[in-house]
Amino acid sequence: MTATPDARLTALARGLAAPRGFVEASLVDPAPTAIRLLGGVPAPEALPVEAIGRASAELWQDADAAATALRYSSPHGSAGLRNWIAKREGVDPHRIVMTNGGMHGLTLAVLTIVERGATVAVDDPVFPGFLWALEVATTRILPVPVVADGFDVEHLAARLAEGARIAAAYTVPDFHNPAQVSLSAEKRRGLVDLAERYGFYVIIDNPYRELRFAGKDQGVAPFNESDRAIHVNTFTKLLGPGWRVGWLVLPDHLVEPVIRLRGRLDVHSSSVTQAIVERLVTADDQWYDRLAGTATALYRHRAGVLVDALREHLPDAFEIQAPEGGLFLWPRLTDDDVDPAALFRRAVAAGVVYQQGEYFAADPGSGSAARHLRFSYSDRTPDELREAVRRLASAFRAGDVS
Amino acid sequence: MTATPDARLTALARGLAAPRGFVEASLVDPAPTAIRLLGGVPAPEALPVEAIGRASAELWQDADAAATALRYSSPHGSAGLRNWIAKREGVDPHRIVMTNGGMHGLTLAVLTIVERGATVAVDDPVFPGFLWALEVATTRILPVPVVADGFDVEHLAARLAEGARIAAAYTVPDFHNPAQVSLSAEKRRGLVDLAERYGFYVIIDNPYRELRFAGKDQGVAPFNESDRAIHVNTFTKLLGPGWRVGWLVLPDHLVEPVIRLRGRLDVHSSSVTQAIVERLVTADDQWYDRLAGTATALYRHRAGVLVDALREHLPDAFEIQAPEGGLFLWPRLTDDDVDPAALFRRAVAAGVVYQQGEYFAADPGSGSAARHLRFSYSDRTPDELREAVRRLASAFRAGDVS
Repeated sequence: MTATPDARLTALARGLAAPRGFVEASLVDPAPTAIRLLGGVPAPEALPVEAIGRASAELWQDADAAATALRYSSPHGSAGLRNWIAKREGVDPHRIVMTNGGMHGLTLAVLTIVERGATVAVDDPVFPGFLWALEVATTRILPVPVVADGFDVEHLAARLAEGARIAAAYTVPDFHNPAQVSLSAEKRRGLVDLAERYGFYVIIDNPYRELRFAGKDQGVAPFNESDRAIHVNTFTKLLGPGWRVGWLVLPDHLVEPVIRLRGRLDVHSSSVTQAIVERLVTADDQWYDRLAGTATALYRHRAGVLVDALREHLPDAFEIQAPEGGLFLWPRLTDDDVDPAALFRRAVAAGVVYQQGEYFAADPGSGSAARHLRFSYSDRTPDELREAVRRLASAFRAGDVS
Repeated sequence: MTATPDARLTALARGLAAPRGFVEASLVDPAPTAIRLLGGVPAPEALPVEAIGRASAELWQDADAAATALRYSSPHGSAGLRNWIAKREGVDPHRIVMTNGGMHGLTLAVLTIVERGATVAVDDPVFPGFLWALEVATTRILPVPVVADGFDVEHLAARLAEGARIAAAYTVPDFHNPAQVSLSAEKRRGLVDLAERYGFYVIIDNPYRELRFAGKDQGVAPFNESDRAIHVNTFTKLLGPGWRVGWLVLPDHLVEPVIRLRGRLDVHSSSVTQAIVERLVTADDQWYDRLAGTATALYRHRAGVLVDALREHLPDAFEIQAPEGGLFLWPRLTDDDVDPAALFRRAVAAGVVYQQGEYFAADPGSGSAARHLRFSYSDRTPDELREAVRRLASAFRAGDVS
């Protein structure tokens, strides 16, 4: 009569795959001296620890504010924080719902609009975290190539015209993870038009938006003005991943369903973290932009160091595009005879670790992602980046002689 | 071709009911001078704001600790905090998974072990929040009466013997919400035996456990020793709801599934809140028990004031049991001719608000919960509690003359 334990795991948790690839690379245990170019995480020195300390101290010294921070609050999120965000997003504060960071925003979107087993169009290459989030509803995906100006809207339009039906389309529009590129303004409008025409939602994952080095902002108005777009953002890249504070910009008709679901999942985001973040960003109207400016300058410099070092030490190994922003470089191996898995093993042996392109393939059959490497430069110093490239160069040379 | 927006809400969020009753009572807008006996929330003066301020200041002044708190951390949760909790729970730290508070623990449990549409046995009366959490998987419930020594295990055993099949059974074993009572040690063992025999899980919701005024601790070993029990707890009642930090004690075989699901939902609980809570509870081995002792003394006193005032001003109106702990009084109307809804309206008019018993009915047909009122005394001063009872007494008298 007793069921075996695993036979009882028949609920939502069933069928969630064990993390692999992408996460395993993060778990690779190379020499302690190895240089890791792995995660899209902010540089510790770019995080405003002193300002956080001051904001925290003010909070706990203010008896009323402290009492409020320790109480239950609304699943919708802190009104002060939502007002501040709404002004920047150019929308009514009602349409902002606070989340526990970007991944939470993605999962809330998926659980709200994706029926179990439905098909969702996704970037190819794709941020693997979205596929994990998507697994709570479906594993059926329609890979859409990411080209020089981002998600290939025409490709999707053709598939829809042929009869393909999707619940949603997912893309990272600014400084794509992993493919660096940004979606052009025209294609932003085109994607939203397609969603309105065919009745699906676009899930817009936008954590790197504030980190522009070069090029022109392609704008988020098409997303924020559409009834068919869910715009996901987070404080992770500027204030640190540890907070778990982010937000959704939702169409009006999705605000109540998302709040209702969200209230079920964990009631609301921490009132404490929201209170501290609210103090940080609202105390001085320019503070957040200054923070973004400082962080962006740092990342621009590091991206430049990495690109220069690759051009110096491995001049023919990669096709490289200088990043216009964000945290990633996505160089393509020029020599089709190079085995990326063997190169990775030699790189680990030489003391440098990165993400292999194959882990970002939405359509593993196409093989194109596997010809890329993903380097994250944000949390490595210039010296580390130069040394990482020297080690990578030695891994290439080891391949030549083996 | 465009679907209407609501027709697209076909995913998990579909079918989640609008909050009603229980929540509406919290939203009732009586005179600003009304005394609210509504929520099971800690008294602000029982929360350790000064200690929190000190722990926060230490965190942000310690560069390494600050950097760690701002980084991504494990979906499993802070190792230091899990070790501390594991020692208190008497289990291996691996079996502790940190959550965003008790409600999050309940929902993670439901999403992990309850198939959509399955039946779950629940307390009757029941904490309505659990029914909301359950809605993410099912609305099919088997109400089990809560009697003088808690969840009626014999009743459930009889239903199972008759052929009823359930995925899980839910109860609050210590200082039941709303029914005050605690589950006897013998019935704890009996419930777990039943779960092991029939292959379901017990979901044990235990937020009030540390708040004992009187009586003997009935122990949690049966839950923590069973492969069939998920033991849900939270720091909410002693450190404040605003943190959103709680934990699960899981059977070994559920640790990985819960972590995998949890990682999908929002990656991990805030590293910042976990770091502060860890500093608070681990800096001094006795601190948390002292905090619990102080809070418990405060709530014991308030419970006594409320019971005494009811006995003085409304000696015949209720059957009252003095609480042995927790945050609630669940008096039963003695006069079957009193209409609870009319009484509530008169009470609001007289300036006192409480939760009506009917909102806690798992089986509304039985009508027994509706004969009760739920008073929360934790966050009202003794003077407020006495005045609340005087107002309630006037509401009773208004009923006599109308």
